[in-house]
Amino acid sequence: MNPLPPSASLADSHWPPPFLLYLGNAPDDLAAKTARGLVQFRPEWCVGQFRGPDCRTSVHVPDMGFAEARAAGANTMIVGVANAGGRFGPETVADIVAALDAGMNVASGLHERLTAHPQIVEAARRNGKHLFDARNPPATPVGNGLKRAGRRLLTVGTDCSTGKMYTTLSLETEMRARGLKADFRATGQTGIFIAGRGIPIDAVVADFISGGIEWLSPDRHDGGWDLIEGQGSLFHPSFAGVSTGLLHGAQPDALVLTHEPGRPHMRGLKHYPVPDLRTTLEANLATARLTNPAVIAVGVALNTSKLDDAGAARACRDAEDLLGLPVQDPVRDGTARIIDRLLEAFPC
Amino acid sequence: MNPLPPSASLADSHWPPPFLLYLGNAPDDLAAKTARGLVQFRPEWCVGQFRGPDCRTSVHVPDMGFAEARAAGANTMIVGVANAGGRFGPETVADIVAALDAGMNVASGLHERLTAHPQIVEAARRNGKHLFDARNPPATPVGNGLKRAGRRLLTVGTDCSTGKMYTTLSLETEMRARGLKADFRATGQTGIFIAGRGIPIDAVVADFISGGIEWLSPDRHDGGWDLIEGQGSLFHPSFAGVSTGLLHGAQPDALVLTHEPGRPHMRGLKHYPVPDLRTTLEANLATARLTNPAVIAVGVALNTSKLDDAGAARACRDAEDLLGLPVQDPVRDGTARIIDRLLEAFPC
Repeated sequence: MNPLPPSASLADSHWPPPFLLYLGNAPDDLAAKTARGLVQFRPEWCVGQFRGPDCRTSVHVPDMGFAEARAAGANTMIVGVANAGGRFGPETVADIVAALDAGMNVASGLHERLTAHPQIVEAARRNGKHLFDARNPPATPVGNGLKRAGRRLLTVGTDCSTGKMYTTLSLETEMRARGLKADFRATGQTGIFIAGRGIPIDAVVADFISGGIEWLSPDRHDGGWDLIEGQGSLFHPSFAGVSTGLLHGAQPDALVLTHEPGRPHMRGLKHYPVPDLRTTLEANLATARLTNPAVIAVGVALNTSKLDDAGAARACRDAEDLLGLPVQDPVRDGTARIIDRLLEAFPC
Repeated sequence: MNPLPPSASLADSHWPPPFLLYLGNAPDDLAAKTARGLVQFRPEWCVGQFRGPDCRTSVHVPDMGFAEARAAGANTMIVGVANAGGRFGPETVADIVAALDAGMNVASGLHERLTAHPQIVEAARRNGKHLFDARNPPATPVGNGLKRAGRRLLTVGTDCSTGKMYTTLSLETEMRARGLKADFRATGQTGIFIAGRGIPIDAVVADFISGGIEWLSPDRHDGGWDLIEGQGSLFHPSFAGVSTGLLHGAQPDALVLTHEPGRPHMRGLKHYPVPDLRTTLEANLATARLTNPAVIAVGVALNTSKLDDAGAARACRDAEDLLGLPVQDPVRDGTARIIDRLLEAFPC
């Protein structure tokens, strides 16, 4: 089932804002990326966060209990903690039941479904509240690789959680600020919550990865760009299949590479090093050429949140010297120079 | 749900042989590959075939109606027609109901589930017969890329339907004939029907492709080989995501490349040419190195069924000169020279 038909708005949905952001016992900042994305791109919808006793992160909105959040106007609790494998523990189930009993709807982007838990289903029923699983993908055809009208940009990365969604939203903001037509196309839970539609591409049946992206970004005839949110990495041994199908389905005209300088190893896998920028870019271009031989790279987006100003500037300069592409941290600098390069390569 | 626990035998299952092979209105030989594989590797189980009025192929067992097949001893009808997207048409649904009414169980390897059709479920209930969907995958963890004990060989291909399953089974036959320990590990519907177990890797949730293969082929300490059935192609824009995750999860020590000389274009996609052997092999080795940097190629298996003897011999010789690997058609020649090369590279 599609999270929302294309014409609907989030306010009409079963997960109306404002939101309480559930962090549970998130072990680190990266685990809270759904909540952080909502705070960054929809701050007006985020009334508070709920943190468990072992929570190791914050998204810097007021801490609240369930009744308190409801009293502050929260209509929906967003379960924004992503674990590898995406399952609910017993504490999380109990917290979700408590949130429903406090009078909120509950929306989740985890692999495991809210509706798989009878206690949760029963609590929703007795309170007359809705459950929304953002990872229930729509049914789509298999991919066909046929050339589609319109232009597409895809974000790719050296690893998972390098800032693909943030970068894609930043590119949309920059293009729209210049009066260009550009639309963020969401492929992950947070993006779907922000955009109000999309496809949770890591949750589709494996044969339908590229077909799902063809569905997400069909023919486009208005001269605008689809800006497609990438997922995973060709170099992540758990998830590269998703990244490959995404590249083929997107048939991108332009790639933007994302990376976090200094990350010690692939996310969740201490025995796998992070690949270098050039290797990553060349592999992504080679894979993308199957469905669009003309694909080019137009920029690099670095996540320099762990560096000071001088370190961030140096990291950008080094990458720029290495690759001959504009390199920016979208959080510090925006993405204007990357869009300049895109428009040089693809004049309107 | 796992099609069968590892220790069970097919005779104890809900889809006991012998079989009626349902071809329906299969448009060509490739569409009947499940039925053909069963006839080739389990001929003693195949009492007949059912063909519709527009069927364009045969697996060369007696044509039978449903009552006739049941009278001949068939316990289960195998729905062996694979369509892109894998859905049942209304004629197929009516035929399945008729087979159940004739007293057979029904097993299917299509993406769409038998149990999705109320008429089929009701017919099974009223006849006290079983339905088995071979594409219901087991739940597995996500992949972790950790090095596993034991040795693994994976078949890869220039395209879908190039003979990966046949080649893998031929390699198993050859190794066992030499007294070596070797086990076929099934990743597709036909292989699962032949092996009695396996994982339908194109039907798992996209995030779990490599994890599913890690589950299928765990640590092995007896000095034997897991021979893993490949799927799809890195160069097929519909399915390359599956092939990528399969390569990473298999962490193969050895690859065998499969190819059909003279195929005019990628299966189902007239606008995509078949890649050449060298390009395909290099791309597969490069992808496989992420989880096993020591991976090598040990041979090529050609499907020369459309060539005469001289043409087949020439095709093998040309490929051998090009790649410096033993090249055989498993159907014509078996795979002894490929196994010779494997044992040279990996002495027992």
